[in-house]
Amino acid sequence: MDQAVILAGGQGKRMHAPIPKPMFKVLGEPMLEWVLGACEQAKLSRICVVTGYEAEQIKAYLGDRCETAYQAERLGTGHAVMQALPFLNADTDGNTLVLCGDAPFIDSETIADSLARHIKERNAVTVITAKVPEPFGYGRILRTDSGIAGIVEEKDATEEQRTITEINSGCYWFRTPDLIGLLGSITNDNAQKEYYLTDTVAIALKNGLRAGAFCSKNPDVVLGANDRKGLLTLNTAARMAVLEKHMANGVGFTCTDGIIIERSVQIGAGTEILPGTILRGRTVIGENCVIGPNTLIENSSVGDAVKLNETQVYDSCIESGVSVGPYVHVRPGSRICSGAHIGDFVEIKNSEIGEGTMISHLAYIGDSDVGKHVNIGCGVVTVNFDGIRKTRCTIGDHAFVGCNTNLIAPVSLGKECYTAAGTTVTEDVPDYALAIDRGTLTIKEGYTLRKFAKK
Amino acid sequence: MDQAVILAGGQGKRMHAPIPKPMFKVLGEPMLEWVLGACEQAKLSRICVVTGYEAEQIKAYLGDRCETAYQAERLGTGHAVMQALPFLNADTDGNTLVLCGDAPFIDSETIADSLARHIKERNAVTVITAKVPEPFGYGRILRTDSGIAGIVEEKDATEEQRTITEINSGCYWFRTPDLIGLLGSITNDNAQKEYYLTDTVAIALKNGLRAGAFCSKNPDVVLGANDRKGLLTLNTAARMAVLEKHMANGVGFTCTDGIIIERSVQIGAGTEILPGTILRGRTVIGENCVIGPNTLIENSSVGDAVKLNETQVYDSCIESGVSVGPYVHVRPGSRICSGAHIGDFVEIKNSEIGEGTMISHLAYIGDSDVGKHVNIGCGVVTVNFDGIRKTRCTIGDHAFVGCNTNLIAPVSLGKECYTAAGTTVTEDVPDYALAIDRGTLTIKEGYTLRKFAKK
Amino acid sequence: MDQAVILAGGQGKRMHAPIPKPMFKVLGEPMLEWVLGACEQAKLSRICVVTGYEAEQIKAYLGDRCETAYQAERLGTGHAVMQALPFLNADTDGNTLVLCGDAPFIDSETIADSLARHIKERNAVTVITAKVPEPFGYGRILRTDSGIAGIVEEKDATEEQRTITEINSGCYWFRTPDLIGLLGSITNDNAQKEYYLTDTVAIALKNGLRAGAFCSKNPDVVLGANDRKGLLTLNTAARMAVLEKHMANGVGFTCTDGIIIERSVQIGAGTEILPGTILRGRTVIGENCVIGPNTLIENSSVGDAVKLNETQVYDSCIESGVSVGPYVHVRPGSRICSGAHIGDFVEIKNSEIGEGTMISHLAYIGDSDVGKHVNIGCGVVTVNFDGIRKTRCTIGDHAFVGCNTNLIAPVSLGKECYTAAGTTVTEDVPDYALAIDRGTLTIKEGYTLRKFAKK
Repeated sequence: MDQAVILAGGQGKRMHAPIPKPMFKVLGEPMLEWVLGACEQAKLSRICVVTGYEAEQIKAYLGDRCETAYQAERLGTGHAVMQALPFLNADTDGNTLVLCGDAPFIDSETIADSLARHIKERNAVTVITAKVPEPFGYGRILRTDSGIAGIVEEKDATEEQRTITEINSGCYWFRTPDLIGLLGSITNDNAQKEYYLTDTVAIALKNGLRAGAFCSKNPDVVLGANDRKGLLTLNTAARMAVLEKHMANGVGFTCTDGIIIERSVQIGAGTEILPGTILRGRTVIGENCVIGPNTLIENSSVGDAVKLNETQVYDSCIESGVSVGPYVHVRPGSRICSGAHIGDFVEIKNSEIGEGTMISHLAYIGDSDVGKHVNIGCGVVTVNFDGIRKTRCTIGDHAFVGCNTNLIAPVSLGKECYTAAGTTVTEDVPDYALAIDRGTLTIKEGYTLRKFAKK
Repeated sequence: MDQAVILAGGQGKRMHAPIPKPMFKVLGEPMLEWVLGACEQAKLSRICVVTGYEAEQIKAYLGDRCETAYQAERLGTGHAVMQALPFLNADTDGNTLVLCGDAPFIDSETIADSLARHIKERNAVTVITAKVPEPFGYGRILRTDSGIAGIVEEKDATEEQRTITEINSGCYWFRTPDLIGLLGSITNDNAQKEYYLTDTVAIALKNGLRAGAFCSKNPDVVLGANDRKGLLTLNTAARMAVLEKHMANGVGFTCTDGIIIERSVQIGAGTEILPGTILRGRTVIGENCVIGPNTLIENSSVGDAVKLNETQVYDSCIESGVSVGPYVHVRPGSRICSGAHIGDFVEIKNSEIGEGTMISHLAYIGDSDVGKHVNIGCGVVTVNFDGIRKTRCTIGDHAFVGCNTNLIAPVSLGKECYTAAGTTVTEDVPDYALAIDRGTLTIKEGYTLRKFAKK
Repeated sequence: MDQAVILAGGQGKRMHAPIPKPMFKVLGEPMLEWVLGACEQAKLSRICVVTGYEAEQIKAYLGDRCETAYQAERLGTGHAVMQALPFLNADTDGNTLVLCGDAPFIDSETIADSLARHIKERNAVTVITAKVPEPFGYGRILRTDSGIAGIVEEKDATEEQRTITEINSGCYWFRTPDLIGLLGSITNDNAQKEYYLTDTVAIALKNGLRAGAFCSKNPDVVLGANDRKGLLTLNTAARMAVLEKHMANGVGFTCTDGIIIERSVQIGAGTEILPGTILRGRTVIGENCVIGPNTLIENSSVGDAVKLNETQVYDSCIESGVSVGPYVHVRPGSRICSGAHIGDFVEIKNSEIGEGTMISHLAYIGDSDVGKHVNIGCGVVTVNFDGIRKTRCTIGDHAFVGCNTNLIAPVSLGKECYTAAGTTVTEDVPDYALAIDRGTLTIKEGYTLRKFAKK
């Protein structure tokens, strides 16, 4: 069957971090993930990732998602593919795509279309290429009437060849048996003593095999990063592409500064995203919301017509019509039901907040089940940790929890009950009851006069 | 008298929202508002807005600010102006300006200067034009020695005509009787079966009337938006123009990222605006302030030498010399008087905070009148809602409200009085008095040893 | 010895602020500081700053860091240098560099290399120049085979001379005795009646002295700012240069929007900086941290593997492995020790927080010494101010401070002690003890039914 080998052994020294280059992230995902995703989307299910530098990190990331091969010494791209020979020999029926694990913008359409061309032209090898305005430094494609005559590197190119703008992406389709044969023919007879995969093209042509080129519509397929500045360039390209996708879907932006939306995020039409907003992971946002400024959402679902102003939300669900913020922290495991209002300086953790409930200011609701149309006063704290274990509070519908109430978990407040401001609730409160724990207010007249007289 | 017809019937399908295109916002105001404002600034007081798609939204927005006409079927720009015939016939003395409600950057100077030219040249129609570097897609202006010979659309233009960079903005001055006559002459004899206003120019010329063109100094008069990306482009242009205006007035910016300042905002010289700051509506800021980062102000006045750090302020007044933040929320109806200091995690709502008063941390002051030089301790809460109604607290000058005090409204604290930390104040406290409500502190020795022994 | 005269008398009227132009800031430092720093880095220790407009501000800033001269009337750059004649006459041995105090990007390499050339070529005067793509408005350098034939101003230049892209930076090296002589020869015989330092070049050549030019590799040496927009351009250039330096060192940025890092800041490899982050002053950040979004750090040290999310830190120390935020304010004089966790809505002021201690939410710790592995509950307040003076709290290792506890300073909590939620601690708590101050909870059944029946 058709299959892919992804080269992921490189180090990226100029990144100054002990991470394999394909594991550096673009919009929150390793570059390798972008490449793998393109393969999977193109229905290539047989994949081998060739690791090298800090191989364990990649193997841990991949788990058993695909096969890996290990390149102990890094002796060039050809040598890297040789490490995948057992993988290649295990299925020699179809074609093999070789991809760079650190060129994240290869796309499934390019993969599928280049394979179709590769098969149609009966090529032994088909180079995936792109036309770029500034080809300096890349290998140039020498086209002939019926295929290609080779690839010429910058340093070997004539003045005229240097004007060629069609360049080698470093990705290739091979007929698998031809790839196995060609790998046996390349040598390290060069200054760097490395085995270059590019050499397979010249060898194929010399051997009378057909070599072709497929020029991708997407010039970004060639982009990679050797340093942090290059990585920023990739992030910027990806960031803008994602924003434009959302704009085409009817999402509004007055100013995109500081907005980072990962690829996986879905947003409904009519929603406005304000500056400084970061949306990550499996986040889904409905229609007609206002999100931001400076809002961060991770792996959460947000309904329609929700307002999240200066809020951070992690692994939670915010239902439709909720307004939150500014300055709110929703921690994992929370559900804020329709029409609830969360004001300022509120933390919600691992709790359900019922429909229409108000938590207007300076409160902490953790490990709690709060009913519908409850009013949580300012300064209310669910005391969910006693130093040994965490337990839950339950608050009934239409309850009114007075300001600076401490609810000592586990405790339950009945429906429509009240707690007086400043009360510490240590036992369950029945429906309709008032819980009050208040000393006697003493007024000491003339206190200030004496205090300052003493001073 | 001279008058204007504004075409506002379009839909903007690619916006993916059930909103008439002229109602999409640029810097917080509908594009239609920009156009109306330019007319009003140019002293055109007779205005008719032609509605169509979702007409009720526009009529609700306009109220009785100007006349409207309704285009039930949208059969082209000429057809749209025909719907305004009753408006035109009601005053045929002067000239009529036809404007696009979704081209927000028409300006009063262009309107006034083009009218002067229109009158001076005794034109029946004067096209407002602009020179742009990339005229592709726009109608090109065919100039003659004494006027124009017509407007040629992209698809009909010769190679040479396509190099013309002076383009039709879609805005025109007509002598009103000539407009009425010309509207009777245009037909829908074209592929789209629409009545084009542009056709009036050719008809005027054919009838021996004079047609001229006025080239605006402001090339942005031609800009419109058909999708969210185009709308972002308009927002960016408007945003930068506003920032440059403020810079010319002596406002400082180290970095403009994420800064959105609406047109209506005034800022004094010497004020610094930090990134992520959003200033909206009728906001006026004095001199030598530091605003930001990430500060949002709506419809509020801010004095001189104010610091607002990570703060949101709505419909309130901050007097000179106040410092606020980080992480403060000032809600509508608040006044923070000179020299007050609001620290972190504080909400102020519908309250007056007197001169020199300190509210340093984690407090909620709502529906309250706080005197001068008061010290509000950490965790103080005005308990202004008892589940039924909201009432006010009053705090006298130089009072000292201890930490975690609950003030159960309605309640009044006298001047120079004290409340002890943790007190719930349920009755008025006289001047100079101390209010204290404190139980007996019990120390249970060896508690932890027993607690963990049990566990 | 070799020495420098820095011209800093200008006003900058278009800045609209009563500040000498060289005192306007680029990345948080006055432009004059950038120039002084370049001199000091180039080992020029004898420096005279010529003041003029609002001289006192500059003198106050400089203190006794270098000499100053005062230009009472501002009659041109030559006149400004004349005010430094006593400084020049005091040491006529070497060479004198004349610099513009409002052109911040002069660098020590340009200073040193131009001096070497100046000495090698035995010039009386060496103009520091740069090649720029848009030379309009600048004086052009007329090169000869062996030096320069002069500098021609824009208005006096021929068509051909205007195509010259090598321009005068306004900075010059002079042999000191030659400078003294040349200053005596320049006149104000021109339209503006000013003495121009540039005239020294023509006079030197006329007198048979050698004049040369040194073209800096750094074209930014010519950049200055006459208005706020120009100042923004300088800030942007400086900002990007600093970010690129950090990227080269292995610091990661997904998006640089709203990130402002001052020159003095150090950041370790592998650290990620998120949008909206501002790093100022003597801030040092370790490796593998995640800083931001929207985090502001001033004059603080941050260890390795620290997370600071939506946090502001001033004049404090955050040790390795600490996580903070979102929405935290660390005020001056604080130390947060290894492995501590500070959650949301917390203020720390002038306090030490021991290793592994948790302060998860809505707390104020001021003027306190908190031990290791302490748990500070939600709503805990150190009551460090009694209206007269501030005193400290001490909390022992492994203590558990219950929610909404008030600690009335000065007070001490022993190790492994507990305080019950809602307790106001007014006396010291021994090791292992529980402190509790709690009234009797009263439950009034049917309260709500009566309350609403009454209503």
